[in-house]
Amino acid sequence: MKQRLTVLTLGVSDLTRSRCFYEALGWRSDSPPEIDVAFFQSGGMVVALWDRANVAADNGLELGSGFGGVSLAHNVASDAEVDVVLAEAAAAGARITKQPAPTFWGGYSGVFLDPDGHPWEVAHNPHWILMDDGDVILPD
Amino acid sequence: MKQRLTVLTLGVSDLTRSRCFYEALGWRSDSPPEIDVAFFQSGGMVVALWDRANVAADNGLELGSGFGGVSLAHNVASDAEVDVVLAEAAAAGARITKQPAPTFWGGYSGVFLDPDGHPWEVAHNPHWILMDDGDVILPD
Repeated sequence: MKQRLTVLTLGVSDLTRSRCFYEALGWRSDSPPEIDVAFFQSGGMVVALWDRANVAADNGLELGSGFGGVSLAHNVASDAEVDVVLAEAAAAGARITKQPAPTFWGGYSGVFLDPDGHPWEVAHNPHWILMDDGDVILPD
Repeated sequence: MKQRLTVLTLGVSDLTRSRCFYEALGWRSDSPPEIDVAFFQSGGMVVALWDRANVAADNGLELGSGFGGVSLAHNVASDAEVDVVLAEAAAAGARITKQPAPTFWGGYSGVFLDPDGHPWEVAHNPHWILMDDGDVILPD
């Protein structure tokens, strides 16, 4: 198995609401509105929104309750940019569960929840390499 | 907010067990074994393994029970390669929750669970573009 995550699917309870939320953050999907999924190109991978029950069934699983222990992050180039993105998320209706602040690992971050409670950490990590095209590279 | 997922963190209950599982699949991490996290470079992003309770607390959330509705996928270039990767996962101790089979969307896939129950769909999607370097590109 190659060392690659190629699709991350987020289970949602209302696709229109969730798609509008990500579009309010500036994301764009070419998926036709009449289909029951939205695909967003994210660098060399895809982020998908799909019905939560379908995500569970398609994986042969029962849906649990609450947070399943998977978090997402969006790395940016400066502390100030963390503040800007968190403010954008709040303006789009996101709940902020961690106000932007210095972190124990020497960076700066805050956390917002998308409409289904999936957490996004918006982070400036001065120890990692952030390329102009958005790629994040671990240091040697 | 740029259209980018840069880190996906999977909550784990036993980091050594989970790291060994991904290493058994052929993944490699340069994270020192003595730290409490393992980072894997995945194209232009990072997949991280970290204690489940820490993932919850770090996001200002309580851990729920069971599957939280987030699934991961690994795209490959052929149906036969799906079979090979699922067999590798089973050999590494993964539970297979969906045997490889044709899908409703015209592809072929199967699903395995990592040691903490995070589902990975191994998929051949003939409608998407899979680059030699592992990038997946949505069609126009």
